[in-house]
Amino acid sequence: MQAMDIEKVNSMDFGEFVDVFGNVIERCPLIAAAVWSQRPFSNLEDLEKHFFAFIDALPQSGQEGILRCHPDLAGRELQRGTLTAESQREQRSAGLTSLGADERLRLAELNAQYRARFGFPFVLAARLSDPAAVRRELARRLHRPPAQELRTALGEVKKIGHLRLADLLGAHSARR
Amino acid sequence: MQAMDIEKVNSMDFGEFVDVFGNVIERCPLIAAAVWSQRPFSNLEDLEKHFFAFIDALPQSGQEGILRCHPDLAGRELQRGTLTAESQREQRSAGLTSLGADERLRLAELNAQYRARFGFPFVLAARLSDPAAVRRELARRLHRPPAQELRTALGEVKKIGHLRLADLLGAHSARR
Repeated sequence: MQAMDIEKVNSMDFGEFVDVFGNVIERCPLIAAAVWSQRPFSNLEDLEKHFFAFIDALPQSGQEGILRCHPDLAGRELQRGTLTAESQREQRSAGLTSLGADERLRLAELNAQYRARFGFPFVLAARLSDPAAVRRELARRLHRPPAQELRTALGEVKKIGHLRLADLLGAHSARR
Repeated sequence: MQAMDIEKVNSMDFGEFVDVFGNVIERCPLIAAAVWSQRPFSNLEDLEKHFFAFIDALPQSGQEGILRCHPDLAGRELQRGTLTAESQREQRSAGLTSLGADERLRLAELNAQYRARFGFPFVLAARLSDPAAVRRELARRLHRPPAQELRTALGEVKKIGHLRLADLLGAHSARR
C-alpha cells in the first residue's frame, strides 16, 4: 500500500477511512469508525492519540473485548490461513509461520493456559520479536496479576496499532 | 444454524462466543467480545440487555462508529457480494436484492444524501420492510435533526440485533 499524507487522510469519507484504518486495532473497525468523528487530524501522532484515547475510555469489558478480537500467536488461525493480512505479516516477521511441530505445540499449550487464566488471548507486538522471545514473554506474563496483565496487553495493542499506522502513513522506515 | 439454549451459551469460551455472536451488531465483534465478560446470562433478554447496555454506554463517536460499520441498503456491497451473511439475508428478505436499475439508483442517491448530512449510513431493520417502505423511510429520516436521527438509527441497530439474537437462540418463530 502506498504511504499517504495527513491531508489525504482528512479528505476521506468514513467509508474510505474505515477501509484504510479499520484494522489498526485488530478486527475492531468500530474504533476507526469512531475516530473518524474526530477529524481533521494534524499528523500521525494526533491520529494515533484518538485511537488510544478511545481504547482508554472503554469500560474494562470493552478493553477485554479488544483483546479477544486478537488471534493466538502461531495458533489455529495461522494454521487455517484465516488471519488478517496485517497479523499474518507480523507473525511471519517474528518467524512464527515456520515453527516446527514441537515448538508450535509448546506455544499452543502456553496460549491455552494464558487464555484460561485471563479470559483473553496473549497479545504481543510480534513484529518486534522472535519465537524464543515470544515463548519467554508468554511464560513470564502468564503468572502476573490480572489487572497488571490487562494493562500490559493493552500496551501491546497500542504498539501494534502504532506500527500499523506508521506503515500506512509512511513514517516507519523499517517496513517489512 | 441450529438454535441453542442459554446453558450452551454460558458454557462457551470467548472464541466460540465471538464466532457465534460476533455479528449480532454488524461488523462489531468487539461488542460480543465485551459482552462475554458479563456471563452467565439468565436468558435471551438478559444477553440482549448486555449488548444494548454496551452500546448505550459508548461515547457518541463510538455510537456513530457502530453505524459506520453498517452497509448501505441496496448499495455497493450488495452489488459486489461483500455483505455479511446476516445482512445479505436481511436485504433479500426486504426485496432489496432484486431491484430494477432505476430503483437502485434512486436509493443510492438518497443514501448518499443521508451519509453527507449525518456522517453515517442509513440503518434500518430491513427484514421488517420492503423496497417502497425503505425508500419512504429514508426520504423521511433524511430531514430530521441529527441528534434525533442518531437515536433513531441506534434503535434500528438494536432491532436488527434483537432479530439476529432471536434467530441464534431459536426464539423467533418467523425465521426466514
